[in-house]
Amino acid sequence: MSSFSHHESNVRSYSRRWPVVFSRSSGSHLYSEEGRRWLDFFAGAGSLNYGHNNPVLKRALLDYIDNDGVTHALDMFTTARHHLLKSLVEVVLQPRGLDHKVIFPGPGGANAVEAALKLARTVTGRSEVVHFTNSFHGATLGALAVTGNPAHRRSAGLPLTGATPVPFDGQDGPCRPEHLARLLANPGSGLDRPAAVIVETVQAEGGVNVAGAEWLRGLAELCREHGILLIVDDIQAGCGRTGPFFSFEDAGIVPDVICLSKSIGGYGLPLALTLVRPELDVWQPGAHSGTFRGVNPAFVTATAALRAYWQDDALEKSTRARGEWIANALQDIVNAHPGAGLSARGRGLIHGLVVGAGLADAVADEAFTRGLLVETAGPRDEVVKLLPPLTASDAELAEGLAILEASVRGVVERAR
Amino acid sequence: MSSFSHHESNVRSYSRRWPVVFSRSSGSHLYSEEGRRWLDFFAGAGSLNYGHNNPVLKRALLDYIDNDGVTHALDMFTTARHHLLKSLVEVVLQPRGLDHKVIFPGPGGANAVEAALKLARTVTGRSEVVHFTNSFHGATLGALAVTGNPAHRRSAGLPLTGATPVPFDGQDGPCRPEHLARLLANPGSGLDRPAAVIVETVQAEGGVNVAGAEWLRGLAELCREHGILLIVDDIQAGCGRTGPFFSFEDAGIVPDVICLSKSIGGYGLPLALTLVRPELDVWQPGAHSGTFRGVNPAFVTATAALRAYWQDDALEKSTRARGEWIANALQDIVNAHPGAGLSARGRGLIHGLVVGAGLADAVADEAFTRGLLVETAGPRDEVVKLLPPLTASDAELAEGLAILEASVRGVVERAR
Amino acid sequence: MSSFSHHESNVRSYSRRWPVVFSRSSGSHLYSEEGRRWLDFFAGAGSLNYGHNNPVLKRALLDYIDNDGVTHALDMFTTARHHLLKSLVEVVLQPRGLDHKVIFPGPGGANAVEAALKLARTVTGRSEVVHFTNSFHGATLGALAVTGNPAHRRSAGLPLTGATPVPFDGQDGPCRPEHLARLLANPGSGLDRPAAVIVETVQAEGGVNVAGAEWLRGLAELCREHGILLIVDDIQAGCGRTGPFFSFEDAGIVPDVICLSKSIGGYGLPLALTLVRPELDVWQPGAHSGTFRGVNPAFVTATAALRAYWQDDALEKSTRARGEWIANALQDIVNAHPGAGLSARGRGLIHGLVVGAGLADAVADEAFTRGLLVETAGPRDEVVKLLPPLTASDAELAEGLAILEASVRGVVERAR
Amino acid sequence: MSSFSHHESNVRSYSRRWPVVFSRSSGSHLYSEEGRRWLDFFAGAGSLNYGHNNPVLKRALLDYIDNDGVTHALDMFTTARHHLLKSLVEVVLQPRGLDHKVIFPGPGGANAVEAALKLARTVTGRSEVVHFTNSFHGATLGALAVTGNPAHRRSAGLPLTGATPVPFDGQDGPCRPEHLARLLANPGSGLDRPAAVIVETVQAEGGVNVAGAEWLRGLAELCREHGILLIVDDIQAGCGRTGPFFSFEDAGIVPDVICLSKSIGGYGLPLALTLVRPELDVWQPGAHSGTFRGVNPAFVTATAALRAYWQDDALEKSTRARGEWIANALQDIVNAHPGAGLSARGRGLIHGLVVGAGLADAVADEAFTRGLLVETAGPRDEVVKLLPPLTASDAELAEGLAILEASVRGVVERAR
Repeated sequence: MSSFSHHESNVRSYSRRWPVVFSRSSGSHLYSEEGRRWLDFFAGAGSLNYGHNNPVLKRALLDYIDNDGVTHALDMFTTARHHLLKSLVEVVLQPRGLDHKVIFPGPGGANAVEAALKLARTVTGRSEVVHFTNSFHGATLGALAVTGNPAHRRSAGLPLTGATPVPFDGQDGPCRPEHLARLLANPGSGLDRPAAVIVETVQAEGGVNVAGAEWLRGLAELCREHGILLIVDDIQAGCGRTGPFFSFEDAGIVPDVICLSKSIGGYGLPLALTLVRPELDVWQPGAHSGTFRGVNPAFVTATAALRAYWQDDALEKSTRARGEWIANALQDIVNAHPGAGLSARGRGLIHGLVVGAGLADAVADEAFTRGLLVETAGPRDEVVKLLPPLTASDAELAEGLAILEASVRGVVERAR
Repeated sequence: MSSFSHHESNVRSYSRRWPVVFSRSSGSHLYSEEGRRWLDFFAGAGSLNYGHNNPVLKRALLDYIDNDGVTHALDMFTTARHHLLKSLVEVVLQPRGLDHKVIFPGPGGANAVEAALKLARTVTGRSEVVHFTNSFHGATLGALAVTGNPAHRRSAGLPLTGATPVPFDGQDGPCRPEHLARLLANPGSGLDRPAAVIVETVQAEGGVNVAGAEWLRGLAELCREHGILLIVDDIQAGCGRTGPFFSFEDAGIVPDVICLSKSIGGYGLPLALTLVRPELDVWQPGAHSGTFRGVNPAFVTATAALRAYWQDDALEKSTRARGEWIANALQDIVNAHPGAGLSARGRGLIHGLVVGAGLADAVADEAFTRGLLVETAGPRDEVVKLLPPLTASDAELAEGLAILEASVRGVVERAR
Repeated sequence: MSSFSHHESNVRSYSRRWPVVFSRSSGSHLYSEEGRRWLDFFAGAGSLNYGHNNPVLKRALLDYIDNDGVTHALDMFTTARHHLLKSLVEVVLQPRGLDHKVIFPGPGGANAVEAALKLARTVTGRSEVVHFTNSFHGATLGALAVTGNPAHRRSAGLPLTGATPVPFDGQDGPCRPEHLARLLANPGSGLDRPAAVIVETVQAEGGVNVAGAEWLRGLAELCREHGILLIVDDIQAGCGRTGPFFSFEDAGIVPDVICLSKSIGGYGLPLALTLVRPELDVWQPGAHSGTFRGVNPAFVTATAALRAYWQDDALEKSTRARGEWIANALQDIVNAHPGAGLSARGRGLIHGLVVGAGLADAVADEAFTRGLLVETAGPRDEVVKLLPPLTASDAELAEGLAILEASVRGVVERAR
Repeated sequence: MSSFSHHESNVRSYSRRWPVVFSRSSGSHLYSEEGRRWLDFFAGAGSLNYGHNNPVLKRALLDYIDNDGVTHALDMFTTARHHLLKSLVEVVLQPRGLDHKVIFPGPGGANAVEAALKLARTVTGRSEVVHFTNSFHGATLGALAVTGNPAHRRSAGLPLTGATPVPFDGQDGPCRPEHLARLLANPGSGLDRPAAVIVETVQAEGGVNVAGAEWLRGLAELCREHGILLIVDDIQAGCGRTGPFFSFEDAGIVPDVICLSKSIGGYGLPLALTLVRPELDVWQPGAHSGTFRGVNPAFVTATAALRAYWQDDALEKSTRARGEWIANALQDIVNAHPGAGLSARGRGLIHGLVVGAGLADAVADEAFTRGLLVETAGPRDEVVKLLPPLTASDAELAEGLAILEASVRGVVERAR
């Protein structure tokens, strides 16, 4: 491991939490070079909703590579691109009544966000974008400006402009974006009319903060009233993480722009999409570009995942049901430590156990020792975040919860 | 193809030049669904220096996937990451006397540039970055600000700040960055002391503009004198495109920060690296992040490419030799059309044939009809840009040049 | 008048409300060229607290000019500057326990604000400044960014950056800057730690919104807790307009930076001051400059005003007493029109009668016809703003109130 | 004097060069409290072209005040405003074929510049403004961004944006703005099409750099070709300082926007004007404002100055003739010290004697001791700047030159 610390930049992060070299992975597990196994409730920060090296996707990927399918193709037409577009439309968009156009913005989530922000500003001719406290949208300059995390913001080395934060659901009143509503209603508020509002329905990095359906509808309505574009960053909460394919479906809203990445590729290969209402599709050819807009192997695994998991509602139902189960299990942990200030929240298979600053890290460390990978989140890293693969078995979920329960118990007791 | 035009955003670009659906690729060729073959002198905009689906890399990739190697791992330690770091240090950095630290900034070139700019501003506490006319560094907000292309700049929808363009080599005097030197020498120039200068040694998108070694040395000296960081964006010109691994080697300079992407992954899978002098490695853990910092299959193919092609100087020598050959061939084309205003320039296996606005596009279209893929570049798309795979055979190079020669002849004659 | 409309820019504003050419003025009155008299409850937007051509000040001014006192002197030492500094310290600062240093930032209020913002950013090394909804701080680029008025903001022609608006008192909860407190307490809020908060204790242009003493104390405390500088823009509410010399005295707070202009010169000649705590006085000589930092005739009238009106508490007491009287009179107007949605607010001799958008303009027009000058304020120009000279006689106040009452009655009845 | 240093901010500047308290002034002289006399070749940094307390203007001013003329009136119509507009049109604009509209932007030069920049951006919808190395346009945020002086720029405490510096005349080639022409001609230059170019025909603070007529014509032509507004900041060089009323008249160009301040008021009272071509007069009423847009006493002295000095060409001819005389005298000083690296430059009655960094300050100090006020200028304060009143007598000019000559001799000899 000294090779890493000697040659790699100090900025590396996860390898500090989990100081072991992983070599293999399969389903819900990662294996170290020494052969030790960890149950993975981190799932590539939400990129591995279908588990590690999912066999269905793996088969499609191996066949594609083996047959010399095109690997790299910018935005040229390819067979794999065609199949992905077709599946996306048939399996995801049309059944949900969406006619959004597909932008391939580049390989990662930040590209999807950058494209969304650039386009929103271009379409409206306005510069300001409203985002929410504790948001996280990426580490490139445009995405950083709408991100709350202070360490990330500082790393820009520049004042970040063109963005105004407002309170997320639960932080400024009962079930409506009150503060934003007031700013928009007041012509002298000092907030220039925004191009867009960008929101995560579940703020994952921000501490698993769950926006209520009513609040989301209020937000969508507010945007419509004021001619502001609504961008849903569904990079971490989308692709079934909360149950339905898109996390905003339960709220019954239709965003003007949708950002997807992480699990859209299915297998953990880089892929990102920005979906935009047809009337917003105003860019001239080539106005936004990028070398890795055509990662065809990711198109193949993305297509395989859509076809395998989203042609019926089995996965959605399973995620909802097991989400409730996890919610109950976390509540049991909370209840087992009265006075310890614990609480739990989540939706589908993204859950947060609020343990406290310092303590959450201790829980994650303890869990690692016991064979479970979980990370922490929230502005003070006070939340243990659970993101098991949607394909994890019930037994795996139970095992992970048991390790978590034991880890919490140990930490809480030591903290007394 | 109507499926593409119906569902994909209007922003798609290359598919307009080449209206055909590609399905397979191998070596120097792409094949359409109908089985027609094109010789590829575009090479994924420089991402496929080792050709399509290079068999050595393909073998390593298939084995890795087949054996359930870790696919997605953020910046966790993995065996594949270890092998890449080791190869990079042993094969590339140490032999060249470089002790730069490796940042994995995200999957694409824009991420490498964003990390470079953010870090340079953080280290120096300054905001301004100097770039060059006709530069291209990426489509995310930070990278856009140092990019010259006007269509891309406009797509930001925001005034781009923190960047000042100065003339590239050949545009403001004999062999020195005169204008920049004067701005820096004058305390009242109005240019605040920059954090960094970012430069491509060969401006690829900008029209294959080649910086001279002396000019690059002058630039590096100027930066050193004024305490300004020198960032070389070697995303398109690096990885052997000009002959040596890094394009700046012939100038004998050592950049403070080096951006790599495109062909560093070898196989066309997304990978980017930002290399920084150890004393600049000041970011705290996690200060810059991204979901796709650990595309392990790309680590595998990158490692295989370094081991296969850079342990000796065979590829470098071949590229240099064939570069001269191409230069001569292009000069022959120029000479064959006296009075047509043609000219040629380039280095190694990146070459530009200046044909003129409108005409260059016509040449590229004609070449496509004749079975050759080439793109155009330059502020007015006046240059036909040649980027054959470094692994192309002599026969393939000759074939491509012959098609080019015929295409130019046809277009020039029609233009009379 | 056609000469004005022909040669002067369309941007002229007050001459549209009052389409008459004024030639003389004295005390509480302005006279047109035709000799008609208007009672002035506008008072130069708060610049004429001591009335027009106040005889005490006029005498000092005429003597100074007659004796060839220095007129223009940048920031050279002059006798007049010395007298002003001495009076300011002896009459204003020392009795209030303030040891602020005096910056002469330029001739107008916007210069005082620009100096305050620049210095706050320089001292703290931070870029963001918090301001309040419906604020007004000036029309230069720095001051505009912290101003709420949308027409003014648009006139910048640029996105305004480095400023975040938060709700003014009464707009986000009971008696505390709740929203700001939450943003500051949340490290992931997305609001970078501000350099400063800039506040008017009474938002004059914003509609005569009065901050409560408790709220101001809460704001000052919040700033202190977070190491944020507190700037009070006392340009319109200072110099006795609310009773005490500084409008913040009743709240018992001590701002880090105080901006003065308008009535500080006393006679309506341009003068502005920025007062800063000694430890903030970090600028090197000449770091901020301006040609009209030394308008010595204004120093003379400013000194005369301080000596004549602020060596005892007579003016303060009178302003407080008559402020209550006006408040009662306005409340009577409100009560006389139940159901019309009127309301009144104010402090000392700045008062607002909320009449409604459109209607307030009608009231001001009607008042003009009847011989009274009043302007409107508020984000929708829904408030009639009363700013009589502090030196107005009781009879003048009564006359003005009577005209206002009649004007309101006429407008309200017509609106039915 | 300790009162100043104790109570006034450290930012005070001129009082350090001239540590004496001035009490009276008349014509070309300032008098200290002790009665010592100094010949003033500084003239309020160009605000006192008609000398101190000019008797013609003084008479008009005293009469106006004595008769209770309106002092403060924002942009209300007043008799004094009418007279100024009429004089400006009749005496200045119409005879020169100009039909510009008059904006009263606020009391100082920075207000004139801010209004010009804001309007240029509003009209064009573009954000970038081109300025020149060693420019000086003011200390408010918008004006600072187009100013070269590094100490001033740093005092902003913010990165300054929306401005790009290019070389002033003589710095990038023979007699044309070559660098700017190249940037504008190259669509990929990275300079977004500017809203405006702002230029001083003689850079006063920048070191008395004189733009040639041909260069100015080239600049105007370039602006016209590219649809860029040309703003001439004639604040220091206008009002006859170079001979003609506007400094750009000799070049035969017509700027789109003209900024005036300093000597336009005549008597040293704050006044500023922004003159704009009729078609640029797009602001809605009130879009730009300011409390001190109507300093009527300054209107009175401005009118008196126009009527007294600009109804014939006597002053212009005198300034031109005496300018040549001064130029010769300075050249004699240069010639008297061969090898000392001296040089001289200037136009009309603004001249610079380049002495060298450190030495120029020493010359100014020596001159002060000998009874002459002169300041230094240039990016390294290497230039002694001469700005005698245009009304100075020949004897006064001769006396000042003699003191200068002696001061230079002393300093140069000591420096050996």
